[in-house]
Amino acid sequence: MNQCFGCSTCKSADKPLEGFIADLPMETSHHRVEGQSAKCGFGLQGVCCRLCSNGPCRITPKAPRGICGATADVIVTRNFLRAVASGSGCYIHIVENTALNVLKTAQAKGELKGLNALNYLADEMGIVCDDIYEKAEKVARKVLDDLYKPEYEKMELVEKLAYAPRFQRWKELGILPGGAKGEVFHGVVKCSTNLNSDPVDMLTDCLKLGISTGLYGLTLTNLLNDILLGEPEIRMAPVGLRVIDPEYINIMITGHQHTIFVDLQEKLKSPEAVAKAQAAGAKGFKLVGCTCVGQDLQLRGAHYTEVFEGHAGNNYTSEAVLATGGIDAVLSEFNCTLPGIEPICDELKIKQICLDDVAKKANAKMMPFDFDRREEQSMEIIDEIVEAYKARRGNVPMNLFPEHGNDDTLTGVSEVSLKKFLGDTWKPLIDLIVSGDIKGIAGVVGCSNLTAGGHDVLSVELTKELIAKDILVLTAGCSSGGLENCGLMEPSAAKLAGPKLRAVCEKLGIPPVLNFGPCLAIGRLEIVATELAKEIGVDLPQLPLVLSAAQWLEEQALADGCFGLALGLPLHLGLPPFVTGSKLVTKVLTEDMKQLTGGQVIINGDAKESADILEKIIMEKRAGLNI
Amino acid sequence: MNQCFGCSTCKSADKPLEGFIADLPMETSHHRVEGQSAKCGFGLQGVCCRLCSNGPCRITPKAPRGICGATADVIVTRNFLRAVASGSGCYIHIVENTALNVLKTAQAKGELKGLNALNYLADEMGIVCDDIYEKAEKVARKVLDDLYKPEYEKMELVEKLAYAPRFQRWKELGILPGGAKGEVFHGVVKCSTNLNSDPVDMLTDCLKLGISTGLYGLTLTNLLNDILLGEPEIRMAPVGLRVIDPEYINIMITGHQHTIFVDLQEKLKSPEAVAKAQAAGAKGFKLVGCTCVGQDLQLRGAHYTEVFEGHAGNNYTSEAVLATGGIDAVLSEFNCTLPGIEPICDELKIKQICLDDVAKKANAKMMPFDFDRREEQSMEIIDEIVEAYKARRGNVPMNLFPEHGNDDTLTGVSEVSLKKFLGDTWKPLIDLIVSGDIKGIAGVVGCSNLTAGGHDVLSVELTKELIAKDILVLTAGCSSGGLENCGLMEPSAAKLAGPKLRAVCEKLGIPPVLNFGPCLAIGRLEIVATELAKEIGVDLPQLPLVLSAAQWLEEQALADGCFGLALGLPLHLGLPPFVTGSKLVTKVLTEDMKQLTGGQVIINGDAKESADILEKIIMEKRAGLNI
Repeated sequence: MNQCFGCSTCKSADKPLEGFIADLPMETSHHRVEGQSAKCGFGLQGVCCRLCSNGPCRITPKAPRGICGATADVIVTRNFLRAVASGSGCYIHIVENTALNVLKTAQAKGELKGLNALNYLADEMGIVCDDIYEKAEKVARKVLDDLYKPEYEKMELVEKLAYAPRFQRWKELGILPGGAKGEVFHGVVKCSTNLNSDPVDMLTDCLKLGISTGLYGLTLTNLLNDILLGEPEIRMAPVGLRVIDPEYINIMITGHQHTIFVDLQEKLKSPEAVAKAQAAGAKGFKLVGCTCVGQDLQLRGAHYTEVFEGHAGNNYTSEAVLATGGIDAVLSEFNCTLPGIEPICDELKIKQICLDDVAKKANAKMMPFDFDRREEQSMEIIDEIVEAYKARRGNVPMNLFPEHGNDDTLTGVSEVSLKKFLGDTWKPLIDLIVSGDIKGIAGVVGCSNLTAGGHDVLSVELTKELIAKDILVLTAGCSSGGLENCGLMEPSAAKLAGPKLRAVCEKLGIPPVLNFGPCLAIGRLEIVATELAKEIGVDLPQLPLVLSAAQWLEEQALADGCFGLALGLPLHLGLPPFVTGSKLVTKVLTEDMKQLTGGQVIINGDAKESADILEKIIMEKRAGLNI
Repeated sequence: MNQCFGCSTCKSADKPLEGFIADLPMETSHHRVEGQSAKCGFGLQGVCCRLCSNGPCRITPKAPRGICGATADVIVTRNFLRAVASGSGCYIHIVENTALNVLKTAQAKGELKGLNALNYLADEMGIVCDDIYEKAEKVARKVLDDLYKPEYEKMELVEKLAYAPRFQRWKELGILPGGAKGEVFHGVVKCSTNLNSDPVDMLTDCLKLGISTGLYGLTLTNLLNDILLGEPEIRMAPVGLRVIDPEYINIMITGHQHTIFVDLQEKLKSPEAVAKAQAAGAKGFKLVGCTCVGQDLQLRGAHYTEVFEGHAGNNYTSEAVLATGGIDAVLSEFNCTLPGIEPICDELKIKQICLDDVAKKANAKMMPFDFDRREEQSMEIIDEIVEAYKARRGNVPMNLFPEHGNDDTLTGVSEVSLKKFLGDTWKPLIDLIVSGDIKGIAGVVGCSNLTAGGHDVLSVELTKELIAKDILVLTAGCSSGGLENCGLMEPSAAKLAGPKLRAVCEKLGIPPVLNFGPCLAIGRLEIVATELAKEIGVDLPQLPLVLSAAQWLEEQALADGCFGLALGLPLHLGLPPFVTGSKLVTKVLTEDMKQLTGGQVIINGDAKESADILEKIIMEKRAGLNI
């Protein structure tokens, strides 16, 4: 910490982290924000097209069409559809691999840790059989069969998984998705050069992609993960850079495909592995959570106390986690694995191993996860990491930050564990909503970015505003990582809530912000919302429930957002997607959608204003329910 | 032709067309080139990234990394992979629909016009059976089965379709593709936000995509088309705007999926349809070819003399074709269907019907082709078009150009018809190459664009330079449309060839430029090259054969280009893809590829220089063969 690298860093809601990063002797994403602060207006508005060699074309008042004749509306929608299709593809890749791992585990009669989740899924899918392996295999096959249907054949599980009034509406609108992989493929083709030029038709595809992303990429991935990794249990846990214990060999995990780690998580605590660690001078191995796979591990932390140190931080905390010097290896299997970790890993001799080629880093070892070779691979990984530990410890600077974060973050919240906490019924929560003790629910979800006020700034400020208005906040995604490191998931955060919500929290001993884990868990929020709506007997758009992806970052978030819109929910974004150059697209997303699905996009970068808007919507929904 | 619209138009190699467009009272793509002439340097170099909400980020000397840490190499490769994957997706969409149409036709025991093609394919695939319908069904199923394999399972037909030495090399390089749709999906995921940051790994995927694009999207589509539409036969045909006969109801077709028109092509000449046309005051119906589906129809024109007027022009001629006023309807089913045709169709009351939703135009009627309803749909289309004819003729201005084009373009060249022409053996051609009467072969393929010197300018000038050097030119794609309208496929064009090639052409009565038809027919050129290589006993990179996509336009062309590179062929481009911002990518494509596959990219926008470079390569290859 003796020299500061280059230019100033962006703000962070996490002030201790901001200071830590500002003092680092190496460059991080936080440093690069300043150098990239001059933004291209065409790109921001989505009116730049680079689909062909005549381009790039850019729409201006004097040039209202690209060379091919595409208007701003067409260019914006093509770019948007391509982003949504790609984002959907990312989630479908995750659920495909997850379902494959469930299938192969079932075939190998491996451990199925979440039988409740298995039975729930089998019931939803109408699968009846006694043998749990046969049941798991059938569940996985149903998912895979749907994913691989052609685009022109509708997926079968949609009707089984979706809330009936929603399914009906989607059917009326003609937005029931075909095979999820086929829909991604179709979307990418449709927005190609000189193909579709009908903005409304392309936006319709975005809704289809939203539905398949949500029900398969999100909801199903969570439940399939539960089967192999164990179901979430509510518990208190430490978070932040403090979780890194230098006496262990520390492995940071990044990505979204937790089932890839099933075998490794067991092997790391095996006597054989521990002996290797001890021979190298460490107490053993520990996993350090980062990004969403870390959130997923934290969510199930009750099952992994021996090998899991805790969740250190979100996507844009990952460079800081590495910069502590306390991490010996990074295992990545998906995003959000920043390219910026490469030079830091080189400098600090941190071993990088990629377990899925889609996430290959240039200077990482590639070891695509192979279920049949999982045990062998686990031992190879362990040996590689022991070597890295021996080569680096003592030879690279340590810059630990044990004061960062906190020790009493409430974790392990899911649609099941929350209901169980409430006494196996949603009635107490509904009663609190009806009485107004809880004014409404806001899902603050999705990524973290660095440009909506800075790292986690808008997410944290908005959340504070919402809880101060007695609105209960549920989170999922990298937003959770920021909120927990800033202490909003400690029970003591109840004092930041409005008087009514504070009283509820203090009575129950819970914080006013409940962490459902990875971005995938937006699918768990959907289950909660559906169960509440069923219990009350209304459709989702009638609930006093809003979503905010205040600091959405990735194309995946746009696909999630389209799921939210298909569900008929209001969706706040701190930064607009690159669509503002089209009045038509902006109007469809922010206004017309209300008539179509009930959803709407709200763009506002100010925490207070955004909270006021969301509160107003909640009050309207309450009025609609006569409460 | 009494008023000129706005700003000046770009140049065209087709001077009469250039004059016609300059005088039009409406805007076309040729007019819009000027207004879009200020190009973004970041976009051109591929160093602009808009994958996340922190962006757009742009690489400069002062900001060598995006916020996430992505370098110019990473940003360029991600953008390039996404383009190649999308382009591949387009071709795979085409072959999927084509195979489905073959399958359903076989099941319905419909007409199979190309039994030679069917038998060829069945033999290649190792399918033995007597019943032609069963055989066609099996062929189609083999194709569909491969397309739908997961990315992690290799396609089976690759080994059967590819030249053995190439297959071996691809296997060594680890670039054998998995399921073609899965490869597109995988490619799109891999280049998403904070996923892959290994440029070489991503370029490897581009080669895989190239192979699946080429063997399936190109080669197989042609042969499947042959089965349903009849095999190409060499004949002379009229080309250009002259083909439009105002005494008929004229239907312009655009796209790439010829099998969608099988039923309609028959119905248009049925007594019932002709009676409807006559009742409306016309002699009957005629199809006017435009873009690649028009090239495909021209290729098989021998089978459709009654209903096909001829090929009017390529992608960037389509607006001019409509502006003649002689077209009553546009049937589109894929690209290249310019968004710019929409206002022209409105103004001239031209009915637009889209037969595939991926190509939906904003103001068009959507009627996705449905094989089971094909006869009903054909009659609906006919009725719609008759109404359009009645509503517009006499009410909109006619601006015909019967002098444009020529009447004696040689068409119908395929790997089969050419060999047959040579006496059912490639020996005469090989002898001419060995003797030096034909110095080598250049495939001038791909699109037309408006920015490599203007409309068809580089393609035409380069072709003239090549033939003047005694290099035989084979063409496929929209480049063919420009070259034929400029007269280079008339036998009299022999006089533009060098003395040796001229003598060959004059002896045989053929032009020095042979038109294989649509861009899909790049796959036919691959068959020709393979058969020549087999006959000589060498691998493809050893042949005195070069490719030029001088005026490549679309992402599809980039996927084709990757096929060319995988085949080990030198590939000239008039404009670089958006990769020049990465030294690494530029070096891999232009230099390192020679060691990998034998291929190389050559970027040069000057016709004379490009021809010199290509000639030099041909001379080196000749030297390598000791000829």
